[in-house]
Amino acid sequence: MTAQIIDGKAFAAGLGDRIAEKAATFTEKAGRAPGLAVVLVGSDPASEIYVRSKGRMARKLGMESFEHTLPEDTTQETLMDLVAQLNADETVDGILVQLPLPRHLDSLSVIEAIDPAKDVDGLHPLSAGYLTSGLPGLVSCTPLGCLMLLKDQLGSLSGLDAIVVGRSILVGKPMAQLLLAENCTVTMAHSRTADLPEKVGKADIVVAAVGQAEMIKGEWIKEGATVIDVGTSRVIRDGEKHLVGDVDFASAATRARAITPVPGGVGPMTIMTLMHNTLIAAYRRKGYDVPELGA
Amino acid sequence: MTAQIIDGKAFAAGLGDRIAEKAATFTEKAGRAPGLAVVLVGSDPASEIYVRSKGRMARKLGMESFEHTLPEDTTQETLMDLVAQLNADETVDGILVQLPLPRHLDSLSVIEAIDPAKDVDGLHPLSAGYLTSGLPGLVSCTPLGCLMLLKDQLGSLSGLDAIVVGRSILVGKPMAQLLLAENCTVTMAHSRTADLPEKVGKADIVVAAVGQAEMIKGEWIKEGATVIDVGTSRVIRDGEKHLVGDVDFASAATRARAITPVPGGVGPMTIMTLMHNTLIAAYRRKGYDVPELGA
Repeated sequence: MTAQIIDGKAFAAGLGDRIAEKAATFTEKAGRAPGLAVVLVGSDPASEIYVRSKGRMARKLGMESFEHTLPEDTTQETLMDLVAQLNADETVDGILVQLPLPRHLDSLSVIEAIDPAKDVDGLHPLSAGYLTSGLPGLVSCTPLGCLMLLKDQLGSLSGLDAIVVGRSILVGKPMAQLLLAENCTVTMAHSRTADLPEKVGKADIVVAAVGQAEMIKGEWIKEGATVIDVGTSRVIRDGEKHLVGDVDFASAATRARAITPVPGGVGPMTIMTLMHNTLIAAYRRKGYDVPELGA
Repeated sequence: MTAQIIDGKAFAAGLGDRIAEKAATFTEKAGRAPGLAVVLVGSDPASEIYVRSKGRMARKLGMESFEHTLPEDTTQETLMDLVAQLNADETVDGILVQLPLPRHLDSLSVIEAIDPAKDVDGLHPLSAGYLTSGLPGLVSCTPLGCLMLLKDQLGSLSGLDAIVVGRSILVGKPMAQLLLAENCTVTMAHSRTADLPEKVGKADIVVAAVGQAEMIKGEWIKEGATVIDVGTSRVIRDGEKHLVGDVDFASAATRARAITPVPGGVGPMTIMTLMHNTLIAAYRRKGYDVPELGA
């Protein structure tokens, strides 16, 4: 078998078109565009790039982008005041505080201060609780993107055996809850897991979110499984830099039914699910019927 | 192999002694006893028995018990007012609203109105989120009791394969998160799970929380596994009423290393973990160092 390569970039582009359409509908109804506020503290170059691309994408899809850049030595109080101000601002539907924050700041307090209705990163503990409890809330962007790709590939996931390797708050844990809500039987695996190859080998769906270059080998994968690779690691091979995932792509592609590449798989979905969440938050906050956009 | 029978009643009694000791310490320090408020709406006979036994146990362990009984036709507003009043009451450390509520009342709004610091039933979505996120919060009583019995039996659970059968918000889902936090590899199984016997047969720890009499057969259990049975169903056999669990006890006991009986296993733990949670809530609310009591 040669796996189908899941084109996250193409899927994200299509999703972006649907979001832009629904953003335009919102703007017409509400008399203002859906608004995303992004807060950056300090001047980490990678964070600056992320923040800029988020703002650019929001504007491209017809949303308002509010960018707040605070100096590296910003106090907790100043940051909390800004969050309170964004919570109170009617035109702001989503608030994202770019992580990591400088070390002197307490990230958890900042995240917990965000109005859960505007928590488009899905990081508030209440958002995690809503997800577990099956209540409407906002879901962390990366796992939501993975779920969209899986549903696009497989249709119903009901009754399938899924393994999630990695148990981060940002990816692994919400991913497991999303798959459970789709009626998968879900195994949560991690660094202490015994016989990982055997367990991966039983799964119809493998989501790898460990952050270790190519630690999941192709021969572990069950014939016909669908593989979602969240990892991105930089490696140097034959003197050249490469970006690789948590899965050994070349060997896994000979066994899987479908697999995401790195780059170009899950990566492009993350920014688009952020836009998705902003749109959903805008619709919910206004009490409009929330459009169905793929998850 | 003949399984050791896990004596939940004896463990709960020992836990009760430790709680009583720490409640006395609290009372001495704080100048008041830890306080548990229980709210009952209507006159369901089973609920009345539960509420009465909770109050009795609290007093027995040296805590204050506040019992509020409201008529069947209580309005949402009256109930919400009472919750607000209990939230504001300094002498109340834990609030439990006995479920199910009469149908005309919205349970979720009531639960969400409880101060999460006093949510001794662990039902608030924020409590679920804290558990998933690894933050200190209050954990649903039944799964907490199961975890205590498991740790008492096995010591470290790290690296063990656990299966949780049943995915309720009250038991299955928090149970899975608790086992994950103990570094188990956790499989969440349910009614849509394929090949359940095979999956149960791989597990070192089986937690059954389905509510179907004896649906898990003894021959499914791996030799030497530890089995925790949360189910209680009434069945009539040879003209007599019996209480049975989700696991076929007689056949499972020939294969397991240890197993909880029904009744007398998980059952007696639930009320005691409620007392545990009330004590923990009292210590946390006062900013005292929280005592270690077995989970």
